[in-house]
Amino acid sequence: MFILRNNPLKMADNYTAVLYAPYDVRIEDLPIPDIGEDEVLIEMHSIGICGSDVKLYTTGICGAEMVKDPMVLGHEGAGVVVKVGKAVKSLAVGDRVSIEPTQPCRACQYCKLGRYNLCVKPHYCSTMTAPGNLCRYYKHVADFCHKMPDDMSMDEGAAVQPLAIAMHACNRAGICLGQTVTILGAGPIGILCAMTARAMGASKILITDVMQSRLDTARELGADCTVLIEREAPDQDVVDDIVAQLGSPPDVTIDACGYASAQRIAMMVTKTGGVVLVVGIGATKVEVPLTQALLREVDIRGSFRIANTYPPAIAAVSSGAIPLKKFITHHYPLQKTKEALELAKSGDAMKIIIHI
Amino acid sequence: MFILRNNPLKMADNYTAVLYAPYDVRIEDLPIPDIGEDEVLIEMHSIGICGSDVKLYTTGICGAEMVKDPMVLGHEGAGVVVKVGKAVKSLAVGDRVSIEPTQPCRACQYCKLGRYNLCVKPHYCSTMTAPGNLCRYYKHVADFCHKMPDDMSMDEGAAVQPLAIAMHACNRAGICLGQTVTILGAGPIGILCAMTARAMGASKILITDVMQSRLDTARELGADCTVLIEREAPDQDVVDDIVAQLGSPPDVTIDACGYASAQRIAMMVTKTGGVVLVVGIGATKVEVPLTQALLREVDIRGSFRIANTYPPAIAAVSSGAIPLKKFITHHYPLQKTKEALELAKSGDAMKIIIHI
Amino acid sequence: MFILRNNPLKMADNYTAVLYAPYDVRIEDLPIPDIGEDEVLIEMHSIGICGSDVKLYTTGICGAEMVKDPMVLGHEGAGVVVKVGKAVKSLAVGDRVSIEPTQPCRACQYCKLGRYNLCVKPHYCSTMTAPGNLCRYYKHVADFCHKMPDDMSMDEGAAVQPLAIAMHACNRAGICLGQTVTILGAGPIGILCAMTARAMGASKILITDVMQSRLDTARELGADCTVLIEREAPDQDVVDDIVAQLGSPPDVTIDACGYASAQRIAMMVTKTGGVVLVVGIGATKVEVPLTQALLREVDIRGSFRIANTYPPAIAAVSSGAIPLKKFITHHYPLQKTKEALELAKSGDAMKIIIHI
Amino acid sequence: MFILRNNPLKMADNYTAVLYAPYDVRIEDLPIPDIGEDEVLIEMHSIGICGSDVKLYTTGICGAEMVKDPMVLGHEGAGVVVKVGKAVKSLAVGDRVSIEPTQPCRACQYCKLGRYNLCVKPHYCSTMTAPGNLCRYYKHVADFCHKMPDDMSMDEGAAVQPLAIAMHACNRAGICLGQTVTILGAGPIGILCAMTARAMGASKILITDVMQSRLDTARELGADCTVLIEREAPDQDVVDDIVAQLGSPPDVTIDACGYASAQRIAMMVTKTGGVVLVVGIGATKVEVPLTQALLREVDIRGSFRIANTYPPAIAAVSSGAIPLKKFITHHYPLQKTKEALELAKSGDAMKIIIHI
Repeated sequence: MFILRNNPLKMADNYTAVLYAPYDVRIEDLPIPDIGEDEVLIEMHSIGICGSDVKLYTTGICGAEMVKDPMVLGHEGAGVVVKVGKAVKSLAVGDRVSIEPTQPCRACQYCKLGRYNLCVKPHYCSTMTAPGNLCRYYKHVADFCHKMPDDMSMDEGAAVQPLAIAMHACNRAGICLGQTVTILGAGPIGILCAMTARAMGASKILITDVMQSRLDTARELGADCTVLIEREAPDQDVVDDIVAQLGSPPDVTIDACGYASAQRIAMMVTKTGGVVLVVGIGATKVEVPLTQALLREVDIRGSFRIANTYPPAIAAVSSGAIPLKKFITHHYPLQKTKEALELAKSGDAMKIIIHI
Repeated sequence: MFILRNNPLKMADNYTAVLYAPYDVRIEDLPIPDIGEDEVLIEMHSIGICGSDVKLYTTGICGAEMVKDPMVLGHEGAGVVVKVGKAVKSLAVGDRVSIEPTQPCRACQYCKLGRYNLCVKPHYCSTMTAPGNLCRYYKHVADFCHKMPDDMSMDEGAAVQPLAIAMHACNRAGICLGQTVTILGAGPIGILCAMTARAMGASKILITDVMQSRLDTARELGADCTVLIEREAPDQDVVDDIVAQLGSPPDVTIDACGYASAQRIAMMVTKTGGVVLVVGIGATKVEVPLTQALLREVDIRGSFRIANTYPPAIAAVSSGAIPLKKFITHHYPLQKTKEALELAKSGDAMKIIIHI
Repeated sequence: MFILRNNPLKMADNYTAVLYAPYDVRIEDLPIPDIGEDEVLIEMHSIGICGSDVKLYTTGICGAEMVKDPMVLGHEGAGVVVKVGKAVKSLAVGDRVSIEPTQPCRACQYCKLGRYNLCVKPHYCSTMTAPGNLCRYYKHVADFCHKMPDDMSMDEGAAVQPLAIAMHACNRAGICLGQTVTILGAGPIGILCAMTARAMGASKILITDVMQSRLDTARELGADCTVLIEREAPDQDVVDDIVAQLGSPPDVTIDACGYASAQRIAMMVTKTGGVVLVVGIGATKVEVPLTQALLREVDIRGSFRIANTYPPAIAAVSSGAIPLKKFITHHYPLQKTKEALELAKSGDAMKIIIHI
Repeated sequence: MFILRNNPLKMADNYTAVLYAPYDVRIEDLPIPDIGEDEVLIEMHSIGICGSDVKLYTTGICGAEMVKDPMVLGHEGAGVVVKVGKAVKSLAVGDRVSIEPTQPCRACQYCKLGRYNLCVKPHYCSTMTAPGNLCRYYKHVADFCHKMPDDMSMDEGAAVQPLAIAMHACNRAGICLGQTVTILGAGPIGILCAMTARAMGASKILITDVMQSRLDTARELGADCTVLIEREAPDQDVVDDIVAQLGSPPDVTIDACGYASAQRIAMMVTKTGGVVLVVGIGATKVEVPLTQALLREVDIRGSFRIANTYPPAIAAVSSGAIPLKKFITHHYPLQKTKEALELAKSGDAMKIIIHI
């Protein structure tokens, strides 16, 4: 089925983080998967913990996903290719790869149009459609494993995944050189949106949050100014604060927190003719001043997962345009996945990496 | 100040429709205006009645506009140039023109970007910023008077205004050849959006309304299928009806009625990756399933007034791509403006033209 | 016409048109191909003759393609599904399909971006990378077989291929409602570009050719005006003729003939800020007034094959927006393929269909 | 430096650089201009020397411009407002401004579409349509005088003009985060394109020139790699060098030198599906491998002057995204304009600023 290049491969254990139910995450030694002819086997090195992992860990539910059967966690991974399927030409044993955690159908209208993030039958890691890669040996279709340049670390390779999410969001928002950008929410995706907006040439970036510590981190990682939001603050006050800090309404507002109030504030604060971009999952029904925004031709857009942003994300990290290393704050071994999830839950960490 | 070409002009009366307060519209003989060097004087021929005229007539308020001082009505007009300012090169006495009812500042960022519909200091006819053209003699800046081809009637020239509104909406919606389009609301703008979508190559157009008579008209003017909406029908039922009729969710949904339910239905029914376009003024705050639409990357856009769509609208009517004549249903003399407004209020007419 | 799924399939002969060398086309009974799990077997009904077939037939060379080994001709085909692979869900035995004549790799950057026409390793019918479908039994990957609506004939299904080529060209040219379009060359692709431009809302379409008979056909099929080009006419004279006929320089000029003079004329005649689109293969090196066009921000674009235009092409034919039937002028049986190619070579036919 | 609004303005001399004929530049004391109600009077501080100034100085001709009557030089200027017209609201006496050297007609189709760089009747500084600003007192329409932030120097304010040219070129090229860019020509515009591309997120920028000293400067100002071109080098060798250095063909190639060979190389080297952007004036007729580029859907675009890039250019300099100060290399007083032009002619200086 596959060809061993160089030495015969000596496989070790394949310890894997499996979520059985809320708060019930177990480390189990699962069989090493066989690979198909278009696939590679990867020895994982670094895997990031994502907000959706935390939601699944704490509630068993994240958006449309649900922990019915035991679910292998992890979709922000990087590792080394240890086996290649016989049809694989783009990768060789020993290549260091950042794993784009999906395998779209490649045949639906969205795949054909280049919007494979909207694929009607995707296999996406650590959802009900595909296992995650928080394990030692993981197989993946070769063309969604992106070869990393030598100057990029394995941890950065893992963190490319949330960066690619942020970059897709910023692409959808159409951020341009010289624009002002407001980001609502200084969590990992909000911060990465700020870093991406900076790399795209945004000239002034304001970020908001309800925690001062996150705003401090945001400033270190590239925000020009910040607004601390008090939970009960009237929307208009927040809008006024943002405009006062920026000097004018922002060209683009990114909602990276999902609160209903954030969606309202985004619609109110954004400049006439500008863009509101919502990344991530918010409340099911929201009451928003939609008409006022639309009459000012403020466009409202969402962004879902990743489409074609791994290559530019890797290039931007490698060129130094995005200092991704600074974004990574904590490290755990696989065996301490539960502790890592608990820390992530607290909101005190920016990006936690699990090492195999 | 201006040059009389050919014979000395013999001016007649300048009867004008002035709104003093709700239901108080008066026909008064006002002075003929002097023209500036970039302006022309137009002897008006045909002026359409618009939904916003009706709102002002019945309530004294329309969006941000309010009848504080007496307001000259009319912003859908066509006529003949009878005088030209000395700097005007593009028009001559005798030219038949369709009047784009605005004079933007030409200096703000929006004007410079080509989005003059968002101008920060516009003079727009029959608002608080400029008088309308429901009168005999009207002056306007020359470059917003569009010369009509010989094969276009004056009534069509008047109706180009709502067509240009619809065309701006359809441009913003990005309608493409072969797409399916749903239009919510079979009033004049909804119908014109259907006609424009057809001219842009939409292959299947569905239109909804609460009045069967409007749906019948819509079918005659270009809709392929219709859905009659019962006022208390659950949103999901309407969504199901639309999808059943079209065979699949529409690529684009245009809300041309402004009901909160229409905005909800638009977000629910539109195809993943599609566009919801809202034209016109809706409720101030609406509760909408925004997140579900944004997660499917359905873009939500508004359209406001007109930007650069007079020339293509005139070309499309002249080429026969848009049979605008069929859209005009009723005719009144200026003296019967009140009767015309009452008919328009009833919703039984599609497009009423006032003749001078 | 076809055989039901459950019955054992009784295959007839599989006569196939094979090109061995210039002017050496043979009809041979080849084995019926086996299908893979994602493929379907199609009993072919109608196959169009394309200009590239003629080039291969007369010279053995077309662009980068060359007849080294015997090549099965045909890439404009429609037929009926007679067998489906076990993984195929989108099609059933008995479905009538229009065949998009390619199978891209689905894994390269272009496929992922939705530009699969630029795929680095495509299998395209009747080239060195894949056999054609001028035969009785042809297998193809299911998702590139587009189910035809009941109101579309098999001949139209075949002619969808050149229409999809023209539609990709018009998409690349960005044709909009109300624009004026000049098309250089009234061959099949030029005519189909005119029909597509019309369906996209172009208000005035001018077409040129060196043969009056082709211009007459073009007028019947949708061109508003024509210019007969004398072979030695100076470029500037042709430019002047076009502008005089249109009344102004065209917004878009499509070169559908490939002469160097056409490229020069396109650059000269197109309106400042407009688009020149070249479809098809022209001279290797051309001397062109490029700088003058670029200083006027006239964009120069090419279009190659087809990307995502089968579905809208089928929809536009089915809705009546494009009267494709009128475009089909001649019919031959498979056994007379050589006669059909000879007629095509003469330039006297618009679209020839071979029937099995 | 300037005089307050309420005090009577005490004007000094108004020495002005006037070009009478090739190599005949004179410094003359001209009358101080009166201002219109939409204009401001500016006391000039810094004015850059541009390549077009050099062409006019050495040949009397630049593109379509010609020194028939004496022409005031200078279109890269910054100064302080000393008088404001009575209708001016956006500026006050004492404001430091960077002058966008144009006054478009604001009424033609291009102005209305936001493409005012293509205006049919522009007044552009130091052409036959408007005097330049290489003088002490210069008047300009207020809305094309851009207020400078406090952290921007007058010299930077002058150099914003060529930066805005480069930014318009890079906008037209559609440069995106993570892309690779090749720039042909390391003159001022080439270098500024490199700096802009960097600020837009280009991950790898290669620049070429025939002078090693310019390449050295380019490296200091942001190019990642360089190719020294020997004047007689075959095109294919240059193409091979570029691809070898970059590791792959560039997504975007900018021709900033105007040689016919550069246009050929750009078409050959650019990646399939990429963009060639030509900025500046090249040879009248060129022989280029156009078809091969167009078949690979490489788009060929030009860029002309400036449209809407002053505000983002100022923002990008102010935010530090573009280190414009490094770009300025030489300084002269107005009285030594001739010496400055001679140095510029030599090609040894990057950007020369004249101080009043």
